[in-house]
Amino acid sequence: MIEIMIDLQGGAKAPLYEKIYEYIKKEIVEGKMTQGEKLPSTRRLSENLAVSRSTVEMAYDQLLAEGYIKAEPCRGFFVCDITELYRLEKQVSAPKSYEREKKAKKRKVDFSPYAIDTGNFPYNIWRKINKNILLDDSEDLLLSGDGQGEYELRSAIAAYLHQARGVNCSPEEIIIGAGNEYLEILLAQLLGREGTLLMENPGYPRAYYTFLNMGYTVKTVPTAEGGLTLDNVCRENPDLIYMMPSHQFPMGTVMPLKQRLELLKWASEAANRYLIEDDHDSEFRYRGKPIPSLQSIDCYGRVVYLGTFSKSIAPSLRISYMVLPPQLMEKYHSECGFYSTTVPRMQQEVLREFIEQGHFERHLNKMRGIYRSRHDYLLGELKKCSWVKKISGDYAGLHLLVQVDTVLSEEELCNFAAEKGVRVSGISKYLFPEAQSRKEIGKELQAPTLAEPVLLLGYGKLSEREVRHGLELLGGVVREA
Amino acid sequence: MIEIMIDLQGGAKAPLYEKIYEYIKKEIVEGKMTQGEKLPSTRRLSENLAVSRSTVEMAYDQLLAEGYIKAEPCRGFFVCDITELYRLEKQVSAPKSYEREKKAKKRKVDFSPYAIDTGNFPYNIWRKINKNILLDDSEDLLLSGDGQGEYELRSAIAAYLHQARGVNCSPEEIIIGAGNEYLEILLAQLLGREGTLLMENPGYPRAYYTFLNMGYTVKTVPTAEGGLTLDNVCRENPDLIYMMPSHQFPMGTVMPLKQRLELLKWASEAANRYLIEDDHDSEFRYRGKPIPSLQSIDCYGRVVYLGTFSKSIAPSLRISYMVLPPQLMEKYHSECGFYSTTVPRMQQEVLREFIEQGHFERHLNKMRGIYRSRHDYLLGELKKCSWVKKISGDYAGLHLLVQVDTVLSEEELCNFAAEKGVRVSGISKYLFPEAQSRKEIGKELQAPTLAEPVLLLGYGKLSEREVRHGLELLGGVVREA
Repeated sequence: MIEIMIDLQGGAKAPLYEKIYEYIKKEIVEGKMTQGEKLPSTRRLSENLAVSRSTVEMAYDQLLAEGYIKAEPCRGFFVCDITELYRLEKQVSAPKSYEREKKAKKRKVDFSPYAIDTGNFPYNIWRKINKNILLDDSEDLLLSGDGQGEYELRSAIAAYLHQARGVNCSPEEIIIGAGNEYLEILLAQLLGREGTLLMENPGYPRAYYTFLNMGYTVKTVPTAEGGLTLDNVCRENPDLIYMMPSHQFPMGTVMPLKQRLELLKWASEAANRYLIEDDHDSEFRYRGKPIPSLQSIDCYGRVVYLGTFSKSIAPSLRISYMVLPPQLMEKYHSECGFYSTTVPRMQQEVLREFIEQGHFERHLNKMRGIYRSRHDYLLGELKKCSWVKKISGDYAGLHLLVQVDTVLSEEELCNFAAEKGVRVSGISKYLFPEAQSRKEIGKELQAPTLAEPVLLLGYGKLSEREVRHGLELLGGVVREA
Repeated sequence: MIEIMIDLQGGAKAPLYEKIYEYIKKEIVEGKMTQGEKLPSTRRLSENLAVSRSTVEMAYDQLLAEGYIKAEPCRGFFVCDITELYRLEKQVSAPKSYEREKKAKKRKVDFSPYAIDTGNFPYNIWRKINKNILLDDSEDLLLSGDGQGEYELRSAIAAYLHQARGVNCSPEEIIIGAGNEYLEILLAQLLGREGTLLMENPGYPRAYYTFLNMGYTVKTVPTAEGGLTLDNVCRENPDLIYMMPSHQFPMGTVMPLKQRLELLKWASEAANRYLIEDDHDSEFRYRGKPIPSLQSIDCYGRVVYLGTFSKSIAPSLRISYMVLPPQLMEKYHSECGFYSTTVPRMQQEVLREFIEQGHFERHLNKMRGIYRSRHDYLLGELKKCSWVKKISGDYAGLHLLVQVDTVLSEEELCNFAAEKGVRVSGISKYLFPEAQSRKEIGKELQAPTLAEPVLLLGYGKLSEREVRHGLELLGGVVREA
């Protein structure tokens, strides 16, 4: 029989049964109590330690459940063979790589067009919803659920899309997924992987590389040559067009209704033509009524609508959604219906509550006000700068385009700015090389270059002080050139 | 000037400022207060309503932030033009489809091999970790973070894999993703989409269809003919082998060391050969020491290791991980490094804490004890059944294979059982048709059929009473035939 003496007063703050459990477990793991040895009875140990018998019973129950000891009827408790048990010790972390050190380097002002405001996130509400959902101890929360995403969340998204973007869809036509790229990968599987996709140049790099990765031939038309005009489209003759009609990234242009109708008609004229409408930041428009989505005027069933909560709530959520026309939905069920959802059930439940309880509406209106005032401030300050030649892409989204009056090249401008602690990117960064397939990419193709530097200035997370400071530093770079 | 009278006593329980906010918002939305109308000053309204001035100020601040009213210096508060604001009303849900009704139909006993125990999930601990993480109000929680998954979570997984499965890897070699299928899709992009994959038949259907979807030629070798023997592999000459050496699904077999070494050597003999080791449920082994992973004995850098928390924690988490050999990791950085992670940051943080605080270790040991006793009980009961001819796949995983002594076909057996409320699947369900590409699947190819019915009996979530009841009903089906 083992004698057990535990110091229950000292050490970390923890329930008594936990201390007894930890002590005995440690003795067993370290080999001080060995296989087959008998433990004291719960009555005796409780007397020795001067704790209640139920406290000792809880400790023994835990040890039993985890396989450290076993109970033999009428004989008592014995130490088990623990060679099969998991014993996971925290390892000393490997030295963090150089890559990570580099990332951590702080900049003074970051004009990234992807930056969002994080200071106004409703942490309290999010925490409360999280807590309430976990309080239910619901078995459903542990099972993977519907492959398309939970029906109730899809209902909430369908209602939002209808009211905010004029999108016509039922919850049955929505697929929820972990980010736009995942949904594009799914779409490429549905459409076959041998098609040709057309997009504007410059454009959104991740969409470009995703379709290349999926085996697509990706062609581009320069926005400088009118972009996705009917003429350009007919000449390139793609199967699929990727477009952002409400607010093109990075140019910030809006596609006119006539052009939208022409492209819809073009798509309807052959069996396998589809238009992918990426409505990435349509939530934030600061002048005039929101522009209805392309999907809302599609009477041919040719638009695949893509949206995300990355900008309207937070990128870390990893929740996007795709609305498929009926014939693609059918194909989804037959060829991709076996995939589990890529979004955790709990996260889906939290988002559903956030929308249904009206918090999403309030958050959107509040954030639009905040972004609008940041937009107005940056625009006002830019108008005072002598080195600013032209401003475009205004009154929507989270960045402005600024043509700079300088002898410097775009690359030099960005590099000199970086040296002063200002992160800013030029539009060339969003120009694609003239590659059309993944294999060609390896050949180091050149992206087309532009005559004059155009900078993207994102204002999503910048204070007025930061904007002023950033513009001063940029002005300095131009003057010193 | 508008007069505002609000009943602050009645109605739902809510803070006073919230009631004032809701009242004024409603008046504006319903057009009872119109654009340009002046609101009472905060002083005056606080007197009229007999509340503190700061309460009214909070309500006005909220209305200001969300764009319902605006403040004009020295003049006061005025109603805004609200036509641009989001007003999301909850829509009546569309009638739920037949599909959903069908799913909801309850069965008496469900022997699904995918079922896990949900009653022993540590809800309290999970809730507490969730709460603590959200309490930090950390900006990082909102940003999408590292595309491979957070470094700290990858460190925790690397330590676990090393200690529990002998896997040799650094956090830099791990990619975290939303489920095995997502990681397989990523892998197919890295390996090019024109290869041939070999797997055993029967096997895991989702892996089969995922690689078909990605454009692979998928060949299968029958387990009845020895499965992935060196002879069979050399004859089929694939680029890629998908295998479950520690516990093949659904057969429950373990690949001998000699065969593992032969396949590793085979893989090392040509540049583009890789072995995908899906270590899906290796956590649950009830006799003898855990079998080390194939990855742990790979000295050629030819094993891609896949694992998941779906079985060890919960399928709804949607967290899997993949360990890539160095040359594939390089390819990942150059071709797939642009993808954002598919796992929400908050979920990653919660899991990291769960592992680092030792809860994962405790949960694994506890669940193994629970599953072991369910396994033992089912095995014992099966041995008493006269209609059971042979039992296999025992002492690991979450299901047993049972060969049934009956004149019924496997399909008849499963259908008759379903009529009695018992969900049970035959092994034919996991036999693949002899298709090799997605295009052929449409042709309704026949899967090979087996001579004698073999059932998969999962016990993950069944009580002893349910097991007894289910076996009685199954016995009845056999006797009545």
